[in-house]
Amino acid sequence: MRKELIKDIGEKELINRLGKFMPKNQTSDDCALIKAISKKLLINNDSLVENVHFNDFTICPHDLGWKAVISNISDLLSSGSYKTVGITISLILPAKTEWIWVEELYKGIDKALKKYGGIILGGDCSLGNEKIISITAIGIQGELELQRSACKPGEIILTTGIHGLSKLGFMMQNKLNSDNDVALNKRLIKKSIQHFCRPRLYPNFLKNLLKTRSNKKIKRIGCTDSSDGLFQAVEDLAVASNCKAIINYEILPKYKDWPDGDKWDEYYFYGGEDYELVFSLPKKWAKKLLKLDKNIYEIGYFSNGEPSIEFKDSNKNKLLKNTPFKHF
Amino acid sequence: MRKELIKDIGEKELINRLGKFMPKNQTSDDCALIKAISKKLLINNDSLVENVHFNDFTICPHDLGWKAVISNISDLLSSGSYKTVGITISLILPAKTEWIWVEELYKGIDKALKKYGGIILGGDCSLGNEKIISITAIGIQGELELQRSACKPGEIILTTGIHGLSKLGFMMQNKLNSDNDVALNKRLIKKSIQHFCRPRLYPNFLKNLLKTRSNKKIKRIGCTDSSDGLFQAVEDLAVASNCKAIINYEILPKYKDWPDGDKWDEYYFYGGEDYELVFSLPKKWAKKLLKLDKNIYEIGYFSNGEPSIEFKDSNKNKLLKNTPFKHF
Repeated sequence: MRKELIKDIGEKELINRLGKFMPKNQTSDDCALIKAISKKLLINNDSLVENVHFNDFTICPHDLGWKAVISNISDLLSSGSYKTVGITISLILPAKTEWIWVEELYKGIDKALKKYGGIILGGDCSLGNEKIISITAIGIQGELELQRSACKPGEIILTTGIHGLSKLGFMMQNKLNSDNDVALNKRLIKKSIQHFCRPRLYPNFLKNLLKTRSNKKIKRIGCTDSSDGLFQAVEDLAVASNCKAIINYEILPKYKDWPDGDKWDEYYFYGGEDYELVFSLPKKWAKKLLKLDKNIYEIGYFSNGEPSIEFKDSNKNKLLKNTPFKHF
Repeated sequence: MRKELIKDIGEKELINRLGKFMPKNQTSDDCALIKAISKKLLINNDSLVENVHFNDFTICPHDLGWKAVISNISDLLSSGSYKTVGITISLILPAKTEWIWVEELYKGIDKALKKYGGIILGGDCSLGNEKIISITAIGIQGELELQRSACKPGEIILTTGIHGLSKLGFMMQNKLNSDNDVALNKRLIKKSIQHFCRPRLYPNFLKNLLKTRSNKKIKRIGCTDSSDGLFQAVEDLAVASNCKAIINYEILPKYKDWPDGDKWDEYYFYGGEDYELVFSLPKKWAKKLLKLDKNIYEIGYFSNGEPSIEFKDSNKNKLLKNTPFKHF
């Protein structure tokens, strides 16, 4: 069977075909319309670039579509969004892209939106040398404003999950295992690929924060997500909030078969694309939340001092000398 | 002096530097915040891709930034936006991009926003092989909903300006003159380059529409913009509204030194990137608007029939056989 390429389909027909993923009231007009919402809106923009963030060997288009949505909604959640209104999708595609690739991408996008909420509001499509999926997501600001700059000395640093798995999954998908001395068990490999290809979100995060808040006067919480790695997230909080983060290595949640060693610590702290929330709360609130939600872990605390990261066990500070996750 | 490249600056510092173009209340957080507006919002997304929509020879970064904003606000205006809230900017840049290129781009963006309204709400930056500027713009829906599907048989087709100049400007910037028989005068060349590099908008469009409306019951108007060429715009209206467009070649507004000939007609109808509004109004309304606003021109009318375009003078119908403007 001859492969159907988008250059043969043409731009108009491509947009028509993608229309089936849009709700019927969203027409293929110049703009998408969002109904009046008398609340603050959050808007976020994230791009996935071929050969920078993904390639056809490491991730299938279905998973890529899923992940593109997750990375955007994760940013919305980490800012305090209680509901995703929708997304616009800007696709850049080489003319030789197969239609089935695009369709699978949209199926993955659709699946993630069905699970976590939101609709496709609109989008556009252009020709380019490499595939790029640029998504703009719009959410509704909930009762708490979550911002990087709202952490305070004395607060407990928490996270919604285990780090490093996504990076390991990426290595596995690239058939790279830089630590041949360690025989990885199948469960860990499977879990890590799952984390890399199909990351999950914590839609109950805001609800549980509100449930465990005793002081209703607190309206702002220090929070970000770990899409660029756990260290980057903690550093962003420390810098924006002007305080020092003390990480307690001993209590960090690790996947049960996660090996020991510098390499593994590097994956853990710098791996990126885990999409966990990293935030801080006053002690009392933190304890209540930890009790209510078993997916949340304590990892350290903020103290007065220069914006920086230190380990409670100073022997571990050598880990801070690694190069952080970066795109450039 | 050594050129300062973005790969040497790094992603964090790049985003810091671009922060000066953002209002102080917009932090470099995960999401941008839009204050509560109890009106419908319009959202639009448009990408400019290097070597598809622009290159360093045809347009300088300052003009490119301006144009990227214009192409988005044009879509908002053509949907009935009365005010631009702001934009998010997603940049994809090769590591070898010079910082000054990025700064100039942002200066152009800033200039267009200062002229036509709106602020930079946020954005992100990724590495890629070619430069891409993807902008999402948010506007507030005004009293009239402008949609492609709202044209009606019997209505006059109008446009806000002269077409073809942008395409000629593009040819000039590429040192292409495919019609060597015609000596172009300097005024036309200057004007066309201006149209290509610094297109303008009609922010009073909606105001003038409302001023000249006598029947307050009419809430929807058929409209789009001619970013993909005049014919594409008329065709989009005809298809979405299910009626036939009759174009009157004789009354089409042309720049005074615009030469005659098939080539020139092709530029005129298929050139693209003119960012003029193309719309239709009931006869009475159209006449009042034409009287009030000298920047608006009548170009034909809609009639019953298969969605298509015809010329009033059937001799001109050969022009319809050309290939339309397309990206793929």
